[in-house]
Amino acid sequence: MRDAYLIGTGQSPYGSYPNESYRSLFQTAYEAATDSVDNGIDSDEIDEAFVGMISIGGRQLGLSAPAVTEHVGLHGIPTTRVENACAASGSAVRHAVQAVQSGMADVALAGGVESMTDLSSDTTRYWFGVSGETEWERMAGTTFSGVYAQIASAHMEAYGTTREQLSQVAVKSHSNGAKNPKAHLGFECSLEQAEGAPTIADPLTLYHCCPTSDGAAAVLVASEDVAAEYTDRPVRIAGVGAAGDGVGLFQRESYTNLPATRKAGQQAYKMAGVGPDDVDFAEVHDCFSIAEILAYEDLGFCEPGEGGQLIADGVTTLEGDLPVNTSGGLKSKGHPIGATGAGQLVEAFDQLRGEADDRQVEDARCGLTHNVGGSGGAAVVHVLESPEEMEVSA
Amino acid sequence: MRDAYLIGTGQSPYGSYPNESYRSLFQTAYEAATDSVDNGIDSDEIDEAFVGMISIGGRQLGLSAPAVTEHVGLHGIPTTRVENACAASGSAVRHAVQAVQSGMADVALAGGVESMTDLSSDTTRYWFGVSGETEWERMAGTTFSGVYAQIASAHMEAYGTTREQLSQVAVKSHSNGAKNPKAHLGFECSLEQAEGAPTIADPLTLYHCCPTSDGAAAVLVASEDVAAEYTDRPVRIAGVGAAGDGVGLFQRESYTNLPATRKAGQQAYKMAGVGPDDVDFAEVHDCFSIAEILAYEDLGFCEPGEGGQLIADGVTTLEGDLPVNTSGGLKSKGHPIGATGAGQLVEAFDQLRGEADDRQVEDARCGLTHNVGGSGGAAVVHVLESPEEMEVSA
Repeated sequence: MRDAYLIGTGQSPYGSYPNESYRSLFQTAYEAATDSVDNGIDSDEIDEAFVGMISIGGRQLGLSAPAVTEHVGLHGIPTTRVENACAASGSAVRHAVQAVQSGMADVALAGGVESMTDLSSDTTRYWFGVSGETEWERMAGTTFSGVYAQIASAHMEAYGTTREQLSQVAVKSHSNGAKNPKAHLGFECSLEQAEGAPTIADPLTLYHCCPTSDGAAAVLVASEDVAAEYTDRPVRIAGVGAAGDGVGLFQRESYTNLPATRKAGQQAYKMAGVGPDDVDFAEVHDCFSIAEILAYEDLGFCEPGEGGQLIADGVTTLEGDLPVNTSGGLKSKGHPIGATGAGQLVEAFDQLRGEADDRQVEDARCGLTHNVGGSGGAAVVHVLESPEEMEVSA
Repeated sequence: MRDAYLIGTGQSPYGSYPNESYRSLFQTAYEAATDSVDNGIDSDEIDEAFVGMISIGGRQLGLSAPAVTEHVGLHGIPTTRVENACAASGSAVRHAVQAVQSGMADVALAGGVESMTDLSSDTTRYWFGVSGETEWERMAGTTFSGVYAQIASAHMEAYGTTREQLSQVAVKSHSNGAKNPKAHLGFECSLEQAEGAPTIADPLTLYHCCPTSDGAAAVLVASEDVAAEYTDRPVRIAGVGAAGDGVGLFQRESYTNLPATRKAGQQAYKMAGVGPDDVDFAEVHDCFSIAEILAYEDLGFCEPGEGGQLIADGVTTLEGDLPVNTSGGLKSKGHPIGATGAGQLVEAFDQLRGEADDRQVEDARCGLTHNVGGSGGAAVVHVLESPEEMEVSA
């Protein structure tokens, strides 16, 4: 099976952009991705596209994927919209890898976009105001914050995880995001601010929850046969993993871990021939601070129940042994749902090429991205290798 | 690249089923597909799933793909919802082929489901009541019937296609559908009935338009490495093609053909090493009767402008040289949007294995399926070969 490489990535700024449309946001990300290709790339060299998006009201109801790809000048190519809730564009990247590995595409675009702050349509409110499983969560009044609050409470009960540790995750995310010019909430926050913020769903405060953002991200996946035409510094997609699960929390055996993350991580590690100890940095799905602590555990960065201690010990800060969410994560960088998964690979690409500026992780050779749909009904993990790592391997 | 084969297919009846849910419909199709595998298959032998679905209101908002796959007992596997409007599950089949050809899956499920007749939710009405491009078609009041009526008018003007020819398409579809126990409108209609029916969007009458249906379909795609374990009569997916286009009719150069169909067909023919003359039967996307006539032309069954004559000459009837829509097509079999594309492969599978009962095409060795999204913003074509054809080739 031929290998797949990232040859370029890009994203729009994440934030509140009332004057931007889902098309213009996608165009910004697309142009940033093509501009980042060292030797340049023309639109007619892109064979296929996968677009993650869940937005509906007021925008294109069906065929929203070709609506954005045609807009940016990708005429006539196969284009598919991929939806796995918040794991939409993580899934899009994985399917782009499949398209390349199947031989149907030499270069595939994977991206995503969401325009979330425009609530002018009833259906937009209907969509974004609620999430999770329909019959027994959403229609019973449980919000998405409520679902993750139940996870947090269970984790605290089982392992003694503290609200202060949740706040430490937020402080770290904002510290990193303050160094990211593309971040939605690009400012620092203190432990006191995180602790003292209004409660959204007990025990989660405002600072334990990610914002809703407008934004887009795009990555270009190329086969080993053509990658060298575009750059001599490609980033190898060494491992890919994905898994599903019951959509509702009540359908799972435990509230304190996400089996989909575990399975996806194990697949990706196995395919890449690495383990958690080999990972130099990770972008994980911190839609709520407790989700980052679960990710530490489910991805094997520590034992179950030790995630709270990992952040308390500073291991996952930018200066720690295993920096997590150097971009600011969903919490500070923002969470434009369809864009989030692909956006994680934008950060990983920059880190692995030594182009992450003030957020650069020293000697970053192996990175991991982790994208979750809902409260764990889907998860996608990618393991990525730096150009330097490949030279060493070769 | 390893070849991909259909080893089993199944569908629910299409129709109006107020007592069925999107989950139960999908389960019916899934069980029919697994039951059709000659040597049987267990759920844990299915590695990945792609589900086409566009429904929203009152059902699962995000993650509706794992919501149905978990329901049928496919626990923990990667599952992605694919949306390309009415080409959703044609796209799902193509991506299942990519997953198998990439080596990530040995057996992948591709299917789709739609529950369209339940209009109890505002968002369902919002979704189904309108379609097409948003800014300049849908929000300007153009319905989907209206879009295809414009296509029909243009085709009549350019080529002299007649309303009687449109009606002949409907008569043929109903004649075939009356032989299909799974058809939504499984009754015959006369030329007089089709001609005399109320006008929906001039020149299209009620009988020139497909119904909205509840239903589901599922197919199992296996790699050449494992297909023989499941059946000694697999159907080879010899060619796959897909293309996109501007979503709006006004974004195209012509109203009388669909470039996406042409491109997708050419790709599929090329990959399969065949041409239109080799096709023994086809299932084409006849959401409106004019769409079937366009398909004849765009898939190369006749020259541009000659599609009306093809049906008038009886070439595409069950007894003709090139039977089209032996299942009854979208017109009579029904059009549960997300299920339609996969459902076309159910008919092709049965035809190529000689199991199409009263609808059987004699000596069917090469079949084609053609699934369109919107008014041509997406198209997917598959070329399929019978087990006998493969023996001859080998």
